[in-house]
Amino acid sequence: MPEAPRQDSRTDSPTAPTDEELRTLDAHWRAANYLAAGQIYLLANPLLTEPLRPEHIKPRLLGHWGTSPGLNLVYTHLNRVIRARELDALCIWGPGHGGPSVLANSWLEGSYSEKYPDASRDAEGMELLMRQFSFPGGVPSHVAPEVPGSIHEGGELGYSLAHAYGAALDNPDLLVACVIGDGEAETGPLAGSWHANKFLDPVHDGAVLPILHLNGYKIANPTVLARIPEEELDALLRGYGHEPIHVAGDEPATVHRAMAAAMDTALDRIAAAQRAAREDGATERPHWPVIVLRTPKGWTGPAEVDGEPVEGTWRAHQVPLSGVRDNPEHLRQLESWLRSYRPEELFDAEGRPVADVLACVPDDTRRLGATPHANGGLLVRDLPIPSLDDFAVPVDKPGTTTHEPTRVLGDLLARVMRDTADRRDFRLVGPDETASNRLQAVYGASGKAWQAGTLPVDEHLDRHGRVMEILSEHLCQGWLEGYLLTGRHGLFSCYEAFVHIVDSMVNQHIKWLRTSRRLPWRAPISSLNYLLTSHVWRQDHNGFSHQDPGFVDHVLNKSPEVVRVYLPPDANTLLSVADHALRSRDYVNVIVAGKQPCFDWLSNEEARVHCARGAGIWEWAGTEDGAEPDVVLACAGDVPTQETLAAAHLLRRYLPELSVRVVNVVDLARLLPQGEHPHGMSDFEYDGLFTTTKPVIFAYHGYPWLIHRLAYRRTGHQNLHVRGYKEAGTTTTPFDMVVRNDLDRYRLVMDVIDRVPGLAVRATAVRQRMADARTRHHAWIREHGTDLPEVAEWSWNA
Amino acid sequence: MPEAPRQDSRTDSPTAPTDEELRTLDAHWRAANYLAAGQIYLLANPLLTEPLRPEHIKPRLLGHWGTSPGLNLVYTHLNRVIRARELDALCIWGPGHGGPSVLANSWLEGSYSEKYPDASRDAEGMELLMRQFSFPGGVPSHVAPEVPGSIHEGGELGYSLAHAYGAALDNPDLLVACVIGDGEAETGPLAGSWHANKFLDPVHDGAVLPILHLNGYKIANPTVLARIPEEELDALLRGYGHEPIHVAGDEPATVHRAMAAAMDTALDRIAAAQRAAREDGATERPHWPVIVLRTPKGWTGPAEVDGEPVEGTWRAHQVPLSGVRDNPEHLRQLESWLRSYRPEELFDAEGRPVADVLACVPDDTRRLGATPHANGGLLVRDLPIPSLDDFAVPVDKPGTTTHEPTRVLGDLLARVMRDTADRRDFRLVGPDETASNRLQAVYGASGKAWQAGTLPVDEHLDRHGRVMEILSEHLCQGWLEGYLLTGRHGLFSCYEAFVHIVDSMVNQHIKWLRTSRRLPWRAPISSLNYLLTSHVWRQDHNGFSHQDPGFVDHVLNKSPEVVRVYLPPDANTLLSVADHALRSRDYVNVIVAGKQPCFDWLSNEEARVHCARGAGIWEWAGTEDGAEPDVVLACAGDVPTQETLAAAHLLRRYLPELSVRVVNVVDLARLLPQGEHPHGMSDFEYDGLFTTTKPVIFAYHGYPWLIHRLAYRRTGHQNLHVRGYKEAGTTTTPFDMVVRNDLDRYRLVMDVIDRVPGLAVRATAVRQRMADARTRHHAWIREHGTDLPEVAEWSWNA
Repeated sequence: MPEAPRQDSRTDSPTAPTDEELRTLDAHWRAANYLAAGQIYLLANPLLTEPLRPEHIKPRLLGHWGTSPGLNLVYTHLNRVIRARELDALCIWGPGHGGPSVLANSWLEGSYSEKYPDASRDAEGMELLMRQFSFPGGVPSHVAPEVPGSIHEGGELGYSLAHAYGAALDNPDLLVACVIGDGEAETGPLAGSWHANKFLDPVHDGAVLPILHLNGYKIANPTVLARIPEEELDALLRGYGHEPIHVAGDEPATVHRAMAAAMDTALDRIAAAQRAAREDGATERPHWPVIVLRTPKGWTGPAEVDGEPVEGTWRAHQVPLSGVRDNPEHLRQLESWLRSYRPEELFDAEGRPVADVLACVPDDTRRLGATPHANGGLLVRDLPIPSLDDFAVPVDKPGTTTHEPTRVLGDLLARVMRDTADRRDFRLVGPDETASNRLQAVYGASGKAWQAGTLPVDEHLDRHGRVMEILSEHLCQGWLEGYLLTGRHGLFSCYEAFVHIVDSMVNQHIKWLRTSRRLPWRAPISSLNYLLTSHVWRQDHNGFSHQDPGFVDHVLNKSPEVVRVYLPPDANTLLSVADHALRSRDYVNVIVAGKQPCFDWLSNEEARVHCARGAGIWEWAGTEDGAEPDVVLACAGDVPTQETLAAAHLLRRYLPELSVRVVNVVDLARLLPQGEHPHGMSDFEYDGLFTTTKPVIFAYHGYPWLIHRLAYRRTGHQNLHVRGYKEAGTTTTPFDMVVRNDLDRYRLVMDVIDRVPGLAVRATAVRQRMADARTRHHAWIREHGTDLPEVAEWSWNA
Repeated sequence: MPEAPRQDSRTDSPTAPTDEELRTLDAHWRAANYLAAGQIYLLANPLLTEPLRPEHIKPRLLGHWGTSPGLNLVYTHLNRVIRARELDALCIWGPGHGGPSVLANSWLEGSYSEKYPDASRDAEGMELLMRQFSFPGGVPSHVAPEVPGSIHEGGELGYSLAHAYGAALDNPDLLVACVIGDGEAETGPLAGSWHANKFLDPVHDGAVLPILHLNGYKIANPTVLARIPEEELDALLRGYGHEPIHVAGDEPATVHRAMAAAMDTALDRIAAAQRAAREDGATERPHWPVIVLRTPKGWTGPAEVDGEPVEGTWRAHQVPLSGVRDNPEHLRQLESWLRSYRPEELFDAEGRPVADVLACVPDDTRRLGATPHANGGLLVRDLPIPSLDDFAVPVDKPGTTTHEPTRVLGDLLARVMRDTADRRDFRLVGPDETASNRLQAVYGASGKAWQAGTLPVDEHLDRHGRVMEILSEHLCQGWLEGYLLTGRHGLFSCYEAFVHIVDSMVNQHIKWLRTSRRLPWRAPISSLNYLLTSHVWRQDHNGFSHQDPGFVDHVLNKSPEVVRVYLPPDANTLLSVADHALRSRDYVNVIVAGKQPCFDWLSNEEARVHCARGAGIWEWAGTEDGAEPDVVLACAGDVPTQETLAAAHLLRRYLPELSVRVVNVVDLARLLPQGEHPHGMSDFEYDGLFTTTKPVIFAYHGYPWLIHRLAYRRTGHQNLHVRGYKEAGTTTTPFDMVVRNDLDRYRLVMDVIDRVPGLAVRATAVRQRMADARTRHHAWIREHGTDLPEVAEWSWNA
């Protein structure tokens, strides 16, 4: 049984803050505002111990002030409730350019200096904190991996709420606050994420507290949600299943009081909902609170600059005073702005924050910048992955039996799901495709998370389920990222063509991982694993619109230290790569595998060895006699492997004197030069596999030019001839698809004949036989709508 | 002044349908249901004139029944109101697998047979209609380009409502109905699209009538919106700014009556809102109606199969009876299902629909399958593009003056915007970045569309504006696609890194165009034009997360007949390619250009010639003497061009005896072989430009391997050495970015020295000088946070 969630602390509702407490909260907020503004402007003189002079100002003013005061307010008030209620909390800072704020707060609470001792909590460290911001080689203006307490960068907007829900899943004691900017709220992914509350289990999951921050403006425009009537906004939030709590104002004392009350109300409601579900067995979906915070953009910054209103307008988005080094009036305004926070009251002579400022700061790992939930590698435990012997399919002779690879994998995933029933640290996500992708065995171990209404006809819906299905690739990806970043495991199964929907999200995750790997204090997290299935070659009823194998190309543009791509050709190799992927850390593993019946080529042990090598000769399939072969048939992907083996079979029959080598590639990065990817083969290995002089006919799963892009530096590259998907798709049969793209067995044999020099005259007749078979195919399919019997019934051992 | 929108017809509210009319509506609906089911199953015996036998059934049953009856209901009732109110209407069919329904209706109304005469409106044509569906080489199950009346394929879900709004913009007399499936409604892009009503001008735009079809299930799961309480759904829709009208039931007669009433109510409200805005000058945003339609999934199909409930469950999603050819009971059930529509009452002995069935069908181009708005090429007019002479910047000497290229383009776009003020057929879309991307001159010609609240501080907001800005790349893309597909023009300006957000959408648009181009009845539409700016090399304050030049790689995987990629190196070349793009048809043009000050290299006339060639030698920049050069410095993109020219400058100074050729590439597809892209160069041309034997140092804007992927077949490929972005990004200065990625002038000179054989010994000293400059750069930037003065102040003529 999972440990019972702790409930005591958050159910005590502390009283409203005293005036004294409000005063210290304001001190904390002012200190954070001071530090945020200082980061944008100051190179030196961080405490304003002397009058501000141009040489104290950075030569290039880069950064964004607008969102900082609001984020600082939230940080301050989260500090209060975390301390008062002894909460474990994490905050997702959604708005772009929130860096100065979160850095300021982390520095104030001390978590920053713990990670970066040079940025000590004193004047010297403060100067470094300010100087490094948006400085060449310094820290970026978003809440990047470098920022303690962050699992979400912001800047590419739209994913905060999905990340928040991912973090809250299976973290019953965790409060995940999520600040959503009103710009970000206009994006589709964010708009769709609100419905994630229909998947949040109040018993086993933590709470998400969205804080919709309406500061009214984006870069240069008002925001939609700030400019619709409040009753419309309330209806929207209620429609999303939330109970709105409003905080609005521009007078700090009033806002502090209102914000504290709103936080208390929200947390009381959350506690009540969790108590009802956990203690009283309530099953209705709670109407979780949402805080709507309206404060001016660039609040407390310059009200007017050069005669134009700035505070409370889009002009406060970036650097409100842009001419500080050259314009004495701007310099004066900046000094007066900075001094308005009364830094002398906030920091002692050594630049250390005074006790009042720190009064609200929680202890130790309760600090938002120090929570291990934002450094998930500290919490992650190895997954219990069973022996593959229990799941591998028996293969006595290659190419005789068939299995649906993803169905076989489904059995393994079901076991993992079952073996994590108590730990609850493994989830499967997918856009309504788990069963379509034939992984439904997992339902035997865990149902599908669902908190909305149910009907008797429903199957496998489960209020406590760990399979996540919603028709939104964005939400699936966001959930999984949030889950992994907080130290858990998972797999995303997706139609191959539509994983492009999350291209931009995976970019950011790869960038996050690449940066994190270089930060010694960030512990490695579990890899993001994709199973791409229902792939390009088997879109029988969907046709052209559902055919796109380009995600592999997309990820291979990214940091090689993070990206791995696997194309297992059968069930046992799929098990092997999945096993490897689920054990790995800090990678993005892309596994492409079919769900349709597929020949079994390798036994479990053979699969293990082959996948460990990543590419190898299938001796049994070729006709080599010890000398260098006449031709290499290479393949990567399940359908290309089948066509290549069928071509090898034809060659064995019709041109038995030809010495043929069959090479299968599972791990695509093996083709890259050694210096370009950790998995890249040495030239010695590559030349040994592919030869340097013989024709290589390479049948590849995706766009053929990708293979050239990987292998162009190899000696034998000019002999490499690649067949793959070339956008010749439609609604048709499996074999017709490969024929249309010239990837079929007959074409591969023709390619061999066209490229191997000095073949006997008889080869011309064989070539004609192949061409005739293609013609026969075209006629047959027009007539019958099915594939040629000789193709449909083919097997390696026939 | 634009012509006053026509208002008379839609303001008459016809009375409710009579019983007789309801009877004929039901006949139409039954006929459509019959044809939809028949398409999934029947090879022959389309009218069931003989008992159904296994040989009448398709060998592979592919297709989806679940959504069809609901879509048929909507089509039928749209027919009624179009006819009764003399509406010009278009319908977007959002749900996936809506093909059988829309094909059935188009065939019934005759628009199908007009496009495809073989599918005549008789028994023979009906057999073809049924047979071709999901048959190899036939028609796909989605509402693909092959389907008359379609501008939206469905299947990749989430874009219907955005397309609908795009179609309605500047079409004041058009009603755009939009059926949104409840699966699709879970996607982020769809969820975000509801707010498009804050951008719809009731005066100059048409109306969008969303019809949210809650049939309750996706592939294998219930849907969220069907399983939240109705008051929550109502709140959500009201929060989106809509007034919901509910229709629910499973008894056809009742539903027909309710649907007719709902349509009348909705259209009356739309007419009233338009009248108020157009005649009475009302300026408040209308609360547009939305119809919520709840009918069973697979309605009127088999209630139970093999003892399991099917109608009204997810089991009705695909083929409800799957064993028809082999299982006599399934065959019997199918026959009884098909006969339940009483085909003998619906079609005459020749298979022609009887008069009752056709009673609701509108005339001629009012038919949904015949509206020219769904075949926008019929309506498109050439854009009035002014002479570039009026906008080109003067260039007396190359590399002396600088301009911000996008700002120069902004002036041209402003003129186009102004010159289309009456026609209203040009729009600019962008995610809150028009000004950030320095195109703000357009505001002088048209403000930003905005129907939400305004404040005195706002600038350029305009209820009638044609610049569209919302922080959603999905909505921008969807709007523009809908606008183009209905025969208008536009341009999408976007941060380069974040255009990946729409990777999957552009895939579908390219696939749509590729298919459309092969359909003789589809007239060419205006191209989808991207301006990608704020690019990888100038993310000074955003850093690593905002650096991604891979969209070019993404689109170049797609159909070459559709895709064009341009990298203009300066302001005048940007004007030239933009001019070309805006005039073109049926392409996706990707233009990558910077917004930062950039040297002017070519005069207007030189730019025109250079862009027409797509790639060429810049003689003035090189040191050739007539013989073949020693080295080719090639470049593509503004920043690489600058670094290449600076490298050429250094070589001229330090190694004057070296014969250097400078080649600039604007049109990236020129590098492809002639047979692979219509713009591909012949080998003769390529070899003439790049030589076959000399080293080519290619400085490219994006991922360097893309150039290899394009050029690997060229003779001189082994001499090609490419520099580009290799994910070495951070928050830093412009020059530090190129240094980090080894694309800087000093590195390029070192590359030349490393690769040109037989250089004088002195070259070693020059190489060291370059390495020293890089070292000096590193020290300077650490100290000053700025670029070396010698770099910052460099110009070609210095």
